[in-house]
Amino acid sequence: MNEFLHKHILDTEQFTKDDLDFLNQKTRIMERLLESGKSFGILNGRLLASLFFEASTRTRLSFEAAMERLGGRLISTVGFQFSSISKGETLYDTMKMIEAYADIAVIRHPVEGSSRIAAGAVQIPVINAGDGAGQHPTQALLDLYTILSEKGSLDGLSIAFIGDLKYGRTIHSLINLLRHYKVHLYLICPEELKLPEIYKKNLDKYPITFEETTDIKRIWDCDVAYVTRIQEERFTDHKEYERLKETYKVNKELILASKKNTTVLHPLPRVNELSTDVDDLPNAAYFRQAKYGVVVRMVLLCILLKAEIKE
Amino acid sequence: MNEFLHKHILDTEQFTKDDLDFLNQKTRIMERLLESGKSFGILNGRLLASLFFEASTRTRLSFEAAMERLGGRLISTVGFQFSSISKGETLYDTMKMIEAYADIAVIRHPVEGSSRIAAGAVQIPVINAGDGAGQHPTQALLDLYTILSEKGSLDGLSIAFIGDLKYGRTIHSLINLLRHYKVHLYLICPEELKLPEIYKKNLDKYPITFEETTDIKRIWDCDVAYVTRIQEERFTDHKEYERLKETYKVNKELILASKKNTTVLHPLPRVNELSTDVDDLPNAAYFRQAKYGVVVRMVLLCILLKAEIKE
Amino acid sequence: MNEFLHKHILDTEQFTKDDLDFLNQKTRIMERLLESGKSFGILNGRLLASLFFEASTRTRLSFEAAMERLGGRLISTVGFQFSSISKGETLYDTMKMIEAYADIAVIRHPVEGSSRIAAGAVQIPVINAGDGAGQHPTQALLDLYTILSEKGSLDGLSIAFIGDLKYGRTIHSLINLLRHYKVHLYLICPEELKLPEIYKKNLDKYPITFEETTDIKRIWDCDVAYVTRIQEERFTDHKEYERLKETYKVNKELILASKKNTTVLHPLPRVNELSTDVDDLPNAAYFRQAKYGVVVRMVLLCILLKAEIKE
Repeated sequence: MNEFLHKHILDTEQFTKDDLDFLNQKTRIMERLLESGKSFGILNGRLLASLFFEASTRTRLSFEAAMERLGGRLISTVGFQFSSISKGETLYDTMKMIEAYADIAVIRHPVEGSSRIAAGAVQIPVINAGDGAGQHPTQALLDLYTILSEKGSLDGLSIAFIGDLKYGRTIHSLINLLRHYKVHLYLICPEELKLPEIYKKNLDKYPITFEETTDIKRIWDCDVAYVTRIQEERFTDHKEYERLKETYKVNKELILASKKNTTVLHPLPRVNELSTDVDDLPNAAYFRQAKYGVVVRMVLLCILLKAEIKE
Repeated sequence: MNEFLHKHILDTEQFTKDDLDFLNQKTRIMERLLESGKSFGILNGRLLASLFFEASTRTRLSFEAAMERLGGRLISTVGFQFSSISKGETLYDTMKMIEAYADIAVIRHPVEGSSRIAAGAVQIPVINAGDGAGQHPTQALLDLYTILSEKGSLDGLSIAFIGDLKYGRTIHSLINLLRHYKVHLYLICPEELKLPEIYKKNLDKYPITFEETTDIKRIWDCDVAYVTRIQEERFTDHKEYERLKETYKVNKELILASKKNTTVLHPLPRVNELSTDVDDLPNAAYFRQAKYGVVVRMVLLCILLKAEIKE
Repeated sequence: MNEFLHKHILDTEQFTKDDLDFLNQKTRIMERLLESGKSFGILNGRLLASLFFEASTRTRLSFEAAMERLGGRLISTVGFQFSSISKGETLYDTMKMIEAYADIAVIRHPVEGSSRIAAGAVQIPVINAGDGAGQHPTQALLDLYTILSEKGSLDGLSIAFIGDLKYGRTIHSLINLLRHYKVHLYLICPEELKLPEIYKKNLDKYPITFEETTDIKRIWDCDVAYVTRIQEERFTDHKEYERLKETYKVNKELILASKKNTTVLHPLPRVNELSTDVDDLPNAAYFRQAKYGVVVRMVLLCILLKAEIKE
């Protein structure tokens, strides 16, 4: 496959396996370009509008670093001080303005579906950087690439998801990408936080397989453990939360007891669910994830702007 | 005329007709440079201080996009978190700091006259991006260029202003520029919101003519309709506001009934005074205004920094 | 001396006299490069993370201008809207993210010692831009360079510090640098605001000498007067504050009566302690300080990023 036909990046449903393979291949090339200092200048003279209607510094700085690393330029805004919207301007009108200013836009918005509305308003490409309970496709793409890069390939891997599988947006999005590969999932969580049926029901049409368990020790059978936070506000019973928080905590002892060389991922920020004593293990890939994230976003910016990525 | 002798852009009174013709001519050239990718690099190595003491994202991003499109660099700040001012620092002292950092400054400030104080403090050029109830000269310049560009010439046009002519800063500023041309104005508004005498009294010394009316249907005789918002807080009687809001609303039906090919402008943001059903008509120039705004500001940055604009 | 062996800039204790001489010499070269337009491009393709966990616009814009003047790029954030930290993320984790994004980081933080924690987390260079009651080393370096540049040399100078010597962070840091030179200090302040013993006790091991006085007229014997603000919140007795505020005010009359050509410095912002009637005297160097500050920070960015500074 030599092309990527999407105009926007709005969700994880839009990608075929060919798309993902194409993106992963381009990301590998971009990694080498970045390493050798050759990525700078690819987007010379191009302008990104970085529109964060809600603060998400991690994601914002990642996109902005990606654009700067390519030699591109940016205009940036954070929050609803974005005054015209506070005066009653619609997102449609705001985007018509942005279209007149920039070549591409990244949008983070608290309301689900906003990025699709934004994309519908304009002729320039739009990237969804998270819209409420909706999708966060670039996080999923960087997670996918992190697994690929850390383990060498995707097919044949067993991957555990630990923590809040019910509300965890990053998990839902990542499963949407992983389903295209021959991977086996261990869905490890308390009963209260099981993966919703909607995310399971179509998986039988894909090469992916999965099993559900409440036992965190199953990560000992996994090549990859993707850890997420269990949030107190999901529980009415505070004691139950405290018990589960301890049960689903990943630490050094747990990882070292694994039968496999389990790679640990986390979308970050973490609080207590992932112990800092894991940080020094080579298994800890979660800080490397941030670096992969910049590279993946560099690729997306280039592809949507029709800039060639080649060595 | 081959030169532009102003050091700063502070208000709309400062411009002669020669100045305006010069700016419009340079803006036309800049449009072509931007289109062909040749504007990037003109301000290579030059540094803009973007100082928004009050948030105005539309204007800020327009100036910042203009600087980035020219290959220039910027330092940027929004709000009075601008901490030294909150500690009691004068605008004079703040500007002495900025002068040491940047080559040119754009300033938005809630207090009328601030941009003149700022300009008086420093040796670098200062552009007023709106100061309270005062002037917003670059908005007027981009409105003027929009009319010129959409209609081909200014002389001979009939132009309607609709809405709040009493408090509308953009209208007052634009009339200050239009008075230099042979245009006829229709000032369409409710009695309560008529253009103040001060803006009318010197117009007889200029080629401009005007008439006042409360009848919105007079836009059917106009080449251009410049629509502005009627704000509820101007009225003590809520019902009167509701009545007028509906009376002075511009929609598709009204525009299609015009005898002329009426071009619709609006300084944006809009709320209800301009119906979205106008958006798809070729008459709707208000989204194109945003693009002209970037080009006009590119020209101002170049001229004040003594950078040549030529094909 | 041909090298500078520090990886980070964290405090003023870290510098030897050789370090200071090296930095001052490089700053002189950088001033000429900046003047002649040759500094732009030295940090082409390098990326600075500007992390202001508390607002300090003066310092932030100075660092950002320095990076832009070198042709470098930046990602920037202000405040604890820096959302992951507000969600409980540690500074360590935040810095691991930043390390994946940028080549160098500048950090301003309300908590003393934060910059050292930040530097310990990462492999990239970190510059302390002020951490609470702690150090602000780049302010001290720019003050030192300002004195050198204004007076031609440091050895043999008599320098007055006026105002709040007890809490004034900038004074403590600058004394740490000046102690390496044969200078004589006049410490001029009310009894309540004397320099703490800890800053005096090791000075006898250095070439510096000092004397303490409450008499502001002693600045008449000084080559340099470094003025700082007396803050009302340091006093329980409001009348006492009002009295001292007037006593330790520097104005034109005082400066013109000096036996020496006293150069006046101030870290800014000022309020009442330094009269604006001093501004027009050639003695007023405090606005030039801002310009030196950009150059000093340009030098630090280059040195830490191993970029050569040469004519």
